[in-house]
Amino acid sequence: MKKSNNQMSDNKIQKISKPKVLAKKQFASKSFNKSIKVVFLGGLNQIGKNMTAIEFGQDIIIIDCGTAFPDGEMLGVDLVIPDFSYIEDNAERIRGLVVTHGHEDHIGAVPYLLKKVNIPIYATPLTIGLISSKLKEHKLLGNSKLFKYSAGQKFNLGSFGVEFVHVNHSIPDAVALAISTPWGTIVHTGDFKIDCTPARGEMINLARFSELGRENVLLLMADSTNADREGYTKTEKSINESFEFLFQKAGMKRIIIATFASNIGRIQQIIDCAVKYGRKVMFSGRSMINYVSIALELKYINVPEGVIVDIDNLGKYPSNEIVLVTTGSQGEPMSALHKMAFSEHKKVEVGCNDFIIISAHPIPGNEKTVNNVINELMKLGCEVIYESMYEIHVSGHACQEELKIIHSLVKPKFFIPVHGECKHLKSHASLAIRMGMSENNTFVGNTGDVVEISQSSMKKSGQVPCELIMVDGKGVGDVGSVVLNDRKHLGEDGIIIMVVAIKLREKKICAGPDIYSRGFVYVKESEELMVNAKKLASKTIMNCLEQKNCDWNLIKTRCKDNFYKFFHDKTRRRPLILPIIMEVKG
Amino acid sequence: MKKSNNQMSDNKIQKISKPKVLAKKQFASKSFNKSIKVVFLGGLNQIGKNMTAIEFGQDIIIIDCGTAFPDGEMLGVDLVIPDFSYIEDNAERIRGLVVTHGHEDHIGAVPYLLKKVNIPIYATPLTIGLISSKLKEHKLLGNSKLFKYSAGQKFNLGSFGVEFVHVNHSIPDAVALAISTPWGTIVHTGDFKIDCTPARGEMINLARFSELGRENVLLLMADSTNADREGYTKTEKSINESFEFLFQKAGMKRIIIATFASNIGRIQQIIDCAVKYGRKVMFSGRSMINYVSIALELKYINVPEGVIVDIDNLGKYPSNEIVLVTTGSQGEPMSALHKMAFSEHKKVEVGCNDFIIISAHPIPGNEKTVNNVINELMKLGCEVIYESMYEIHVSGHACQEELKIIHSLVKPKFFIPVHGECKHLKSHASLAIRMGMSENNTFVGNTGDVVEISQSSMKKSGQVPCELIMVDGKGVGDVGSVVLNDRKHLGEDGIIIMVVAIKLREKKICAGPDIYSRGFVYVKESEELMVNAKKLASKTIMNCLEQKNCDWNLIKTRCKDNFYKFFHDKTRRRPLILPIIMEVKG
Repeated sequence: MKKSNNQMSDNKIQKISKPKVLAKKQFASKSFNKSIKVVFLGGLNQIGKNMTAIEFGQDIIIIDCGTAFPDGEMLGVDLVIPDFSYIEDNAERIRGLVVTHGHEDHIGAVPYLLKKVNIPIYATPLTIGLISSKLKEHKLLGNSKLFKYSAGQKFNLGSFGVEFVHVNHSIPDAVALAISTPWGTIVHTGDFKIDCTPARGEMINLARFSELGRENVLLLMADSTNADREGYTKTEKSINESFEFLFQKAGMKRIIIATFASNIGRIQQIIDCAVKYGRKVMFSGRSMINYVSIALELKYINVPEGVIVDIDNLGKYPSNEIVLVTTGSQGEPMSALHKMAFSEHKKVEVGCNDFIIISAHPIPGNEKTVNNVINELMKLGCEVIYESMYEIHVSGHACQEELKIIHSLVKPKFFIPVHGECKHLKSHASLAIRMGMSENNTFVGNTGDVVEISQSSMKKSGQVPCELIMVDGKGVGDVGSVVLNDRKHLGEDGIIIMVVAIKLREKKICAGPDIYSRGFVYVKESEELMVNAKKLASKTIMNCLEQKNCDWNLIKTRCKDNFYKFFHDKTRRRPLILPIIMEVKG
Repeated sequence: MKKSNNQMSDNKIQKISKPKVLAKKQFASKSFNKSIKVVFLGGLNQIGKNMTAIEFGQDIIIIDCGTAFPDGEMLGVDLVIPDFSYIEDNAERIRGLVVTHGHEDHIGAVPYLLKKVNIPIYATPLTIGLISSKLKEHKLLGNSKLFKYSAGQKFNLGSFGVEFVHVNHSIPDAVALAISTPWGTIVHTGDFKIDCTPARGEMINLARFSELGRENVLLLMADSTNADREGYTKTEKSINESFEFLFQKAGMKRIIIATFASNIGRIQQIIDCAVKYGRKVMFSGRSMINYVSIALELKYINVPEGVIVDIDNLGKYPSNEIVLVTTGSQGEPMSALHKMAFSEHKKVEVGCNDFIIISAHPIPGNEKTVNNVINELMKLGCEVIYESMYEIHVSGHACQEELKIIHSLVKPKFFIPVHGECKHLKSHASLAIRMGMSENNTFVGNTGDVVEISQSSMKKSGQVPCELIMVDGKGVGDVGSVVLNDRKHLGEDGIIIMVVAIKLREKKICAGPDIYSRGFVYVKESEELMVNAKKLASKTIMNCLEQKNCDWNLIKTRCKDNFYKFFHDKTRRRPLILPIIMEVKG
């Protein structure tokens, strides 16, 4: 194992303390299990929520801590974070969180993690900048321990040595990790692609991957997002030509470009093109403004003075001198572009004089919302350029040919495909096998799996808790399957509430029964239905009251059963039925 | 205008009566407006719900009558049908419904239309077969007037002559319409593509399109579904090769193929391949069995005896002698393939011994559900072949080069792109313009638009009602925006119900207040929140009761306001709040 330097690139970060380093001998003397454990807390068989722990002896390091988008069934849920139970149970063994890059699916859950265990965080400068902004929002920045390292630098975390290796991705300052362990190096690619002419910065440090491969790489974990796509991901530079062409085509029109706020390289390309064609650049959308300010502050965007102008000055420039860069490339309902499409944006009204470029690919599941936005913009008369028309977006992830290059350079003993759904992981595993890896040395796993690796073998050795933890407003984890099932039921068929006040001793109805509904039918047009439901309720309750052993439960059950049948017969719908009985005393 | 024959191909159809034909002179003598009106009741700026009326003098004919899928916002809605107000208002002028082919987006709303106005229906044999099956389900078959014509045949409907022109599409027996009017021919392509080697039947009758073009085509209305796709749609025959290859690749495994039940040509291809490789064919899924039985009965599928076997015999054959054709190519939650993926299918259990081919492309919006099914099948060990891997699906719609051929053959004076979202219609219009059509002679419209066409001009002349009519269970149109908004609200944040019984005269609370919630939080884990909410309710109600002019509304409003604020502060959620006050008398 090589010695590495604990080094910090600058001291802008609040509260910088030296990471606690445990010497190897400290645990070497103990009778700890000497294999390496890799614990998958997210990112396997799912997109997003990337989080992996690596364990040797007493030491644990964590790689990434991201969020996932809620799927369509998770009604009302804002985001999904990993299950931190395993981390909490092993809090004192954790030497640090190492973050590969600043996308939400890698940093989004950091604030939620720090609320549980305040561990030190290690990342590149831009990534630290983005994490800081997030922690500030959650009022956690003051107490957090953030350490900046640049690609090429190395540091120790317990028995692990960590080295950042520069890769290309759709956000600057993305790194792969070369983690040295007593049994060999673990290479984790993070999200990456091979771009020989990226929009900004250097190409991926293939030389370093090759050097690592010449030594002893025990395990490769690599990005599988595009593992089922043939060929290469095109270079970011190919977009320059499209932008140049489209800026000319836009002519006298105002240009509006929607893209991912985190794609700093793309924003740099837009700025460069704007400078060339004499347009000012404005930004719209909260996250766009947030990312751009951080990138400007940390000098990840280069822009001549006077080119960036506040959106409030929109009216001061003729349309052919404006490029407006906006959020909403995924058609998100609260985004700036969505508001423009539905004429709800406070500052921007769009129409025939607008030339709109959607410089992104819809994330699976967003196809329809993106489509809606395109159609609405077109109805307002805008010219809209979307992906199938010109080359205005390239992926940030490696396709099969790029993956093959990494595999062939790194030459790992064991391979675990990460970051992807089952189909991506399987595709990636079969690619590795086609390249000569033995099937026994690859592992296609699930979130929650624990894999044990020695110098000669790799096997699944257990399972850790990996529930979907849902964040809804302020609540973390207080929405689960019962609440979600109710929401689904309510959302699809609405609710019928029957309320009645009873003097049980006198077997007398004091008020009601009354029927209320929400989300079921137009009550005004269904008066008869409601009147009959009320009659049914009265009859059911009276019948119950006449029985000897009548109690609340009997009335509730009977009302539920009768109502269920009644409404299903009449409407073929199954509203949630809630009978409420109030006891009036005295 | 040519004379045409009223002809029927066979008399299997129940209740066949001669269509009522009005002679031209009947209206020619009246002072009716002499222009043609085209009334778009669906299919413009939307996918599905295709329905167009054409009007001349006293006569109206309707083209197609389809359903649309509810979009994500229409919670609990089963399907969407066109607004029939215009049809009902003009019932006695309607000479018939002409249907181009048997897909749901062209025939799905027929039963709902016939419940309003029982008009005669004209279509090709398979289409009539599919409509009949639908009408039978709705118990409407006995009274309906169905007329079968084959491609090449002509018939009169009032002042209109209608000719069926054979086209290629993803269902057999699809036709375009050549509608002769006093001012020239209207060509409506229906859904179509140009396939020189279709899976079954002849290639599109280009010669007839060309003849029509040499005469006087007043107006072309053409399918725009793929108008933003370059090039050609590949021939159905190209799939044969993939199937052959995959049947060999499957080896000893059982083959399961998911495709659209209506794609009879694809099913024929599968059967042919099964015969060649010695496999029996079984079917799973309600609509699959329905389509296949109709197609078999009407001889649209050719199959040697003994090849099709009931699914109950699944266990009797070794896996390498089985092909199971199933629904679920769109990942629909109730479909057979979905049930297999989630181990819920009663007759089929899948695993490592299954080779599954998804021979379809996800309809926009279904990408995620299809993905889920693929991943779940893979987790069970199935080998899954999906579209990006091999050529196992081709579209049923014409791409740009095919559209150009139709435009160049038909040479219409006016053009209206139909069947598509705004982006498709605009793409198609600009294709026509690039081919020399003047912009004034094209019309990009909206559902509800009425277009008036004379020999020399085309202009928008009005608007007809075109609400989205939603079908939910037995209810048609009783779910509207209020109900949907409530469903959305309930689905995202749940409901809080506060109920109290009061003696208003005595200003006394007799029972409650009690708080109930559904779909909001885990009540057990949020006891404190609920206790505090109850306290707040008591306080609010007591305060109101102490006021001089206290009435129900005051209490309700105050409770709503206070609860809204309380719950939002505590949880950042906005449940629907329903205060219920019961008055106890005596």
